[in-house]
Amino acid sequence: MGATETLARFALNTPSTAIPDPILHEGKRCIINYLAVALYASADPSMQILTGLFEEEGGNPQAALIGSDMRTSLQNAALANGYLAHLEDYDDTHFPTVIHPSAPTIPAAIAVGERQNATGLDVLTATVLGIEACCRIGLSVHPHHYDAGWHITGTCGVFGSAAAAGRLLGLDEGQMVNALGIAGTQAAGVRETFGSMSKPFHAGRSAQSGVLAGLLASRGFTSTDTILEGRRGFAAVLSTASDMAQITEALGERWELPNNGLKPYSCGVVSHPLIDAMIIFRNTHGVKAEDVVSVTANVQPLVLELMDRQHPRIGLEGKFSHQHSMAVGLVDGGAFPEQYTDERVLDPTITALRDKIKATVDPKMPDDAAEVTVTLKDGRSITEKVDHATGAPENPMSDSQLEDKFRNLVSRVLSKNQSEKLLTRLWDIDKVDNVGEIMEMARP
Amino acid sequence: MGATETLARFALNTPSTAIPDPILHEGKRCIINYLAVALYASADPSMQILTGLFEEEGGNPQAALIGSDMRTSLQNAALANGYLAHLEDYDDTHFPTVIHPSAPTIPAAIAVGERQNATGLDVLTATVLGIEACCRIGLSVHPHHYDAGWHITGTCGVFGSAAAAGRLLGLDEGQMVNALGIAGTQAAGVRETFGSMSKPFHAGRSAQSGVLAGLLASRGFTSTDTILEGRRGFAAVLSTASDMAQITEALGERWELPNNGLKPYSCGVVSHPLIDAMIIFRNTHGVKAEDVVSVTANVQPLVLELMDRQHPRIGLEGKFSHQHSMAVGLVDGGAFPEQYTDERVLDPTITALRDKIKATVDPKMPDDAAEVTVTLKDGRSITEKVDHATGAPENPMSDSQLEDKFRNLVSRVLSKNQSEKLLTRLWDIDKVDNVGEIMEMARP
Repeated sequence: MGATETLARFALNTPSTAIPDPILHEGKRCIINYLAVALYASADPSMQILTGLFEEEGGNPQAALIGSDMRTSLQNAALANGYLAHLEDYDDTHFPTVIHPSAPTIPAAIAVGERQNATGLDVLTATVLGIEACCRIGLSVHPHHYDAGWHITGTCGVFGSAAAAGRLLGLDEGQMVNALGIAGTQAAGVRETFGSMSKPFHAGRSAQSGVLAGLLASRGFTSTDTILEGRRGFAAVLSTASDMAQITEALGERWELPNNGLKPYSCGVVSHPLIDAMIIFRNTHGVKAEDVVSVTANVQPLVLELMDRQHPRIGLEGKFSHQHSMAVGLVDGGAFPEQYTDERVLDPTITALRDKIKATVDPKMPDDAAEVTVTLKDGRSITEKVDHATGAPENPMSDSQLEDKFRNLVSRVLSKNQSEKLLTRLWDIDKVDNVGEIMEMARP
Repeated sequence: MGATETLARFALNTPSTAIPDPILHEGKRCIINYLAVALYASADPSMQILTGLFEEEGGNPQAALIGSDMRTSLQNAALANGYLAHLEDYDDTHFPTVIHPSAPTIPAAIAVGERQNATGLDVLTATVLGIEACCRIGLSVHPHHYDAGWHITGTCGVFGSAAAAGRLLGLDEGQMVNALGIAGTQAAGVRETFGSMSKPFHAGRSAQSGVLAGLLASRGFTSTDTILEGRRGFAAVLSTASDMAQITEALGERWELPNNGLKPYSCGVVSHPLIDAMIIFRNTHGVKAEDVVSVTANVQPLVLELMDRQHPRIGLEGKFSHQHSMAVGLVDGGAFPEQYTDERVLDPTITALRDKIKATVDPKMPDDAAEVTVTLKDGRSITEKVDHATGAPENPMSDSQLEDKFRNLVSRVLSKNQSEKLLTRLWDIDKVDNVGEIMEMARP
């Protein structure tokens, strides 16, 4: 049995009772984090581009748009909600692959869940299994696939959304294999678009592609049986090397969710240990921007590959500037969405500080670590080594920190009272009779 | 100025008067051929999968589905009509790249043309420019891109549809650059799916992706400025080598449409010279299936790469079996849609003949040539060398042959009277005030 069929069976046949409690709990945390970042992002002006398009194109009211009164088709809802989930780069990261798995997977699970009147537990289970499928496939082509320039959230995301959608649609095994095929042959998204709306679009389009794959397969649409392992399939075409054992080995025993970290900062994950260090300079050593002569950092290679942008011109570019992210870490003590507005990236204090920051690659630096030295006008220099960035698997956000993040973000669009009720209900999502109730509670 | 910006300006700023008459005529032929194959395919049962989905998901009545009374959203129409155009593998082929450029481009041009109440000349011009963009980009990554396993119609098709849609939407240059970026970051489609519904789905999804890109860009959605030439852009990520000069060199002076051939047979184009030879055996030498001991063929490498399938199980697989295509060429004297039904691929006479056919790669064989030898029970053996397959640029279908193809295919769904009126009007599409009139005339 090939990897595709194995994964299809796993996604269909694993009962929720076979998933360990800590994994289900991690799935809940992903859903809470997802709704928090998507609700916050729903107030972004770019969302009107999508809602305007949906109004023009139409769509039956089958599923909710987050942060809106509009109900629309499953595909539209998946597209917009996936976009919102990734817009602030504040969602989550599967550290071994740099996939942001919730943004493509959860919108698909919830939208299809609404159509099916699925329980909260059904949607939570589909989320966990979809994320597992997505991350396993990512592992099978990592690091070659990402190194080639693919945005792995866009490409592997289609499998997470298709697996979640297909399970909730009640596909049979043959249909699920076809759904994975239809999804995989839509896998797309290149890194050249980073710093523009097209980056979060990848997550939305992946969510939509997976929903489309599930819906088509449920009606008898056909594809290949071997999208993952085939000679002209996903791994062979989109990667220079692959290892199918990463997909099938100990499936259902070893889980990838513990390697998925919720993001404490609203920007590219590779800068997070750098921000941690800058916050330590500020809060522990009392360093102020005007005291700084220079900042030097030793970093893992992806920092310069992805985030070397001395002077971002707009907020979305700031999210891919380690200089900007470090500067706001020192000046503001955090790197939240308000640090990545179009105005904030042009602030003179921040701009001046960015000019003093220089990073050098240390190929031996672990992915979640960094070493930063600040030299001050009084002659002192201070070095901080961060071994595991906040939010990394070895240093995860606690449930209480996640609640703070949720309350802070959601306050942009929901009242305190509504936010608390929603949060309480989300921790009990496995006891919710119909997932539509959650979307109703989340409506501003 | 980079390739992306150059191409965006070309697609926007070239007036129809700057396009030579023979190129516009070739564009007309593409539109006639497109409507013929799509109208024929509209009676395929798989179309009900798409119309059923559209009914469930909804969509405002903005554009026509070919062969149907349904009007739906631009994106739905582009998806379904692109699917229909490629379903029978009977559309057209840009020989230098093996792109089938009409199937993704024309549905986008017509759907957006309907929204804009565009003239026939506007749609014809957008078609010609979209196909040029699509084929130029294909040339820039050929043969590496296709060899890697990409279905180049799916991947490069997004640029054809985005260019056509963007022009008809009246985008400005910055928006068109963004539209190409949004399109290119959706480029997808792997060859593992050949022989299933997912192959024609690539053409439909490309048409839809380009329409979506145009609509989003028109509303201010952003992307990269350098989707084609960027370090992590389309060419760098989806090909091991590329040449941007293929996109920009003599743009507007040298045209790719003369290298695009309309298909005389309803199957993978690389088998066409083989079918030609088998028809010569039948019609000129009177060879019958029961006389044959063996058939040997010398072929270009892609024949075995793409179409080595001794015993296809369903019609769609038959389209990617050179053995089946050769067998029906000898038995039936043609390779039309009726030769690729699920029943026909299981016919005992055909099955027995397929077993006697063997092809060998000759790396020096030109793409549109083949040499076939049949050995007969009476001891004779006959060899036919085909230098240029029917439908190849050096041996194109005449306008009269195209009319025969149109009449034959369209008779499946339109009356003779309606078919003749439509054909006459299509030859005059450049004089049609509103392209919606054409779609109305084509409604069964």
